[in-house]
Order: sequence, then C-alpha cells, then structure tokens
Amino acid sequence: MEITSTQNPKIKALIALQQKSSERRSQGLFVVEGQRELQHCIQAGLPIDTIFYCPTLTTPPIPNPPPGGGARGGLFPVSPTLYQKMAYRGSTEGIIAIVKTPNLQLSDLRLSDTPLLVILESVEKPGNLGAILRSADAAGADAVIVCDPLTDLYNPNLIRSSLGSIFTVPCVACRSEDCILFLKQHGIQILTAQLQDSHLYYDTDMTQGTAIVMGTESTGLTDQWRRAADAHIRIPMLGQLDSLNVSVSAAILMYEAVRQREQKKMQKNTHSTE
Amino acid sequence: MEITSTQNPKIKALIALQQKSSERRSQGLFVVEGQRELQHCIQAGLPIDTIFYCPTLTTPPIPNPPPGGGARGGLFPVSPTLYQKMAYRGSTEGIIAIVKTPNLQLSDLRLSDTPLLVILESVEKPGNLGAILRSADAAGADAVIVCDPLTDLYNPNLIRSSLGSIFTVPCVACRSEDCILFLKQHGIQILTAQLQDSHLYYDTDMTQGTAIVMGTESTGLTDQWRRAADAHIRIPMLGQLDSLNVSVSAAILMYEAVRQREQKKMQKNTHSTE
Repeated sequence: MEITSTQNPKIKALIALQQKSSERRSQGLFVVEGQRELQHCIQAGLPIDTIFYCPTLTTPPIPNPPPGGGARGGLFPVSPTLYQKMAYRGSTEGIIAIVKTPNLQLSDLRLSDTPLLVILESVEKPGNLGAILRSADAAGADAVIVCDPLTDLYNPNLIRSSLGSIFTVPCVACRSEDCILFLKQHGIQILTAQLQDSHLYYDTDMTQGTAIVMGTESTGLTDQWRRAADAHIRIPMLGQLDSLNVSVSAAILMYEAVRQREQKKMQKNTHSTE
Repeated sequence: MEITSTQNPKIKALIALQQKSSERRSQGLFVVEGQRELQHCIQAGLPIDTIFYCPTLTTPPIPNPPPGGGARGGLFPVSPTLYQKMAYRGSTEGIIAIVKTPNLQLSDLRLSDTPLLVILESVEKPGNLGAILRSADAAGADAVIVCDPLTDLYNPNLIRSSLGSIFTVPCVACRSEDCILFLKQHGIQILTAQLQDSHLYYDTDMTQGTAIVMGTESTGLTDQWRRAADAHIRIPMLGQLDSLNVSVSAAILMYEAVRQREQKKMQKNTHSTE
C-alpha cells in the first residue's frame, strides 16, 4: 500500500529531519534524495534507516542497502503526489532515504603520508561548504574539517550542492582548539588564507602535510587560527573588486598543492631514471 | 509623489525587463539593484536610464549618474511596499535602476600585451557565469567572451552572482566562429578544457596571450572549438566523482596563468639584477 498523506507519522518524521537541524542532531539521522546520492551513501558504508520510493518515478533497481546495514525502518512506496511534496529538489528521481549520521571524529581520520586537509572556520553558507567538498573530492584531499560550524553537515542544501561528495570525502565537525591540537600532533603545517601579512600562495611549499585554513567571506579567520599558523598565504587580487568566493579560493589553493606534489613526483621520477 | 502601484507603466516596464530576456534584448535595457552595483555601473560609464529609490530604505547619497550620461527617464521615489515587490534580491538597499545595455563587440575590446581571456561556450547557468566573472575580475583577465549564449548577459541571477563584476570585466557575447577568427587574428593561443587527449593544465605554458575555453558541464565543448585549439588541457581528477563545477575549473585555470606570469616576471627581475 502506497503512503499518500503528509500526516503519516513516518512522512512527518522525514519532513522534520529535512527542515530542522535540531531534529537531525537529536535523532542522529539525515535525509538523502536521489538515486546517485543514495548509491554514494551506501558505498560509503553509511547505515540506511528508511527508504521511501515512488514506483512511477523511480528507475529500477532501487539501491540495495548492504546486508546488515540497512533499511531497519523499512522500504515504503509513496504516491507521486506525496513524493512531490516530500522532495526537496526539483528533480524527480523518486527516491528519498533516511540515513544514520556518521558523526566522524578527528581520531577516526585515516590520513595519507602527506595529508592535504581543508579546514573551514565557521563557514556560513551550506552551499559553499557543499561546493568545497566537491572540489576536495576532485583534488583528492584527505578530509574537510569544519570548525565551530554554524550549520550542521547534513543540511539539505549542503548535500545537494556537494553532488554526493559529502559521502566520498571524510568530513569532521569539531572545535577549533581540538583541530589545532590534532594538526600540531600530526606535524601537519597550517596555512591560513588571509590578505594581511601573507605570502603569495604559489610561493609557499605545500608538498609536505598541509592544512589549508579558510575563514568566512565576511569576517575572515579568528586570531586563534592566525596565531597557530605556520604561514599566512594569499591569492593575489588583480581586479577592482578584491573578492573571491570562498569555495573558489579553496579550490585554487587545493589545486596548487596538487600541482606542486605532482610536479615534485615527476621530477623525482626523472632523476631516478637518469 | 511616491509611486505605490505595480500598475504604474514605469513599474510594469521594469518588471518586464527583470523577467524577460526578450524584453531586455528588444529594449536594449536591463535592471540593476543595489547601491554598490549601481556605483560599479556608473564607474563603468554605462548610461543610466531611470532610477527608482525607496526613501525609507535608501542610505543617502543616492548614486549620482555622471553628467550627460544618466537618468534620462528620471529619478522616482517608490513606497516601501512597492519596493519589496520590485526587488529581486532579498536585501533591502532601496535602489533599483534601469540601465542601457553596453552590447560590447569583439572589436571594442582593448587587450593587454599578453591577454588572458576566458571563453565560455553555451554556458547554461547564469549563476555560473556570474561566478566566473567574479574570478575573472580577481585574476585580472582582459575579458570574458560568451559564445552562442543560451542566456543573455543581463539576467538578474547573473548580475547578482557576479557581485558587480559584470561591470568591471569587459564581457562580449558573440558567435563561436567569430570568436575563433578574432583569437587567431590576434595570435592568442586557444586552450580548450577537456578530459580526452589532453595535457595537465600546469604543464602547459600560459605566459603568452591565452584564451581558456570551457564548455558546458553536461556536454563539454563542440568539435569546432576542439579543432581550433592549440592545446587541450585538463585538470586532474583525483577523487571518486570526476567532476568540478565549471566556475571552479575556470578559476583554477585562470590562476594558473596568473601564477606562471607572475613567477616569470619575478625570474626576469632576478636575472636583470644579477
């Protein structure tokens, strides 16, 4: 039997999770929409709680939660009219799931030999964080760490703009002081993006373990981070407006690390075959 | 006397310009909202046609169109309630103007000795184009050229996301074949961003006059551009999703040109003082 009403308790619970970060936090659950997103979610090993699907809108197969992991709350067909009311996005892929929040901690991170981390202090806009995650996936960053966040990581806008990268890139929310301690303990250099007293980013060595730290577009970084920095770096502003979007800045800095590391690897290979 | 009704012919004309690209095209006019945006517009020398302002929302002074240039249609106070209906953005800066479309042509461009151009073929989303203009301002690009556009350049979403850079960066819309001819005539190398048969972008010399050409996120570039290219370049994808936002890609490529050019300049200076 298809569910048809927004008054159904399961649908009410879903809508509350979509709308309220307090609800997501207290329940330890969030909402994923779309076939591809749910597939990424399952690949990342996140436990699926409940799946709602609209038989007339879903292209089979419906993603199959791995054994043991999922759909403890069940698998429920919903009517097309109800689905349109539940769907946060305009697209009509016909599948929405409730998923257990991973709540990754700093100590859960498995870092590479020369980690590349992006740290965001109090980023305001979920869309910017989603865009940064997408670039972090492409640049092969080890993790994105959000310090003293003003939004939760499982905001629907963030999930949408990340195009699935919230599930492919390890993402931790924590306090700035814990993050600084973690970086110091792991010998990861801290590069803060700031305009004052800073070096050009491309003159700064990023081939060692590196954390790129960005503040908000409006107020920048707090003193705590400026003091903890091994170097301050800036992207030169050659125009009239003196501003770059925070997600664009993050991508430019991450890819500079990629460039330096790849070119160093190439040089090493050239020398070793000489 | 404040205008209070959306039925006022001047207000009707404004709303039509906001909503319809056909109206903007046939009238040769577009709409600018916000104090800072209008200031950029005036600085860029664009002729202002009409200014509407809400006395209780505007922080004086109201931007002053330069002599001869502006407000031929006049300066009109509007009521707060009407202003809220006219305003496209959520913010309440209390000022909206109708401005003459510059309609810049390729032949109007004044290029530097080693131009840096960004060419976008059929970019779909006005928000992406606005974001690219913002990065083009920061990177000091000579111009952004939009070929075979699917949107007009004076779409309200584009103006908003460009944060004023639509007025600081010369922006031309034209046909791809005219653009290719222009680039060849000016000896500007054409680098097309594409994944197949391409070199890593940081292994490609961008210190000479360079046009970075990007296609849509969905279908990429047409053969016309691939054939016209001096080199094909790609940004390495090191993650699971194999995708970057087109505005992020454009920024990474533009700033690689900035890096190469600035570092070459530094090397020259170092040699000349030895």
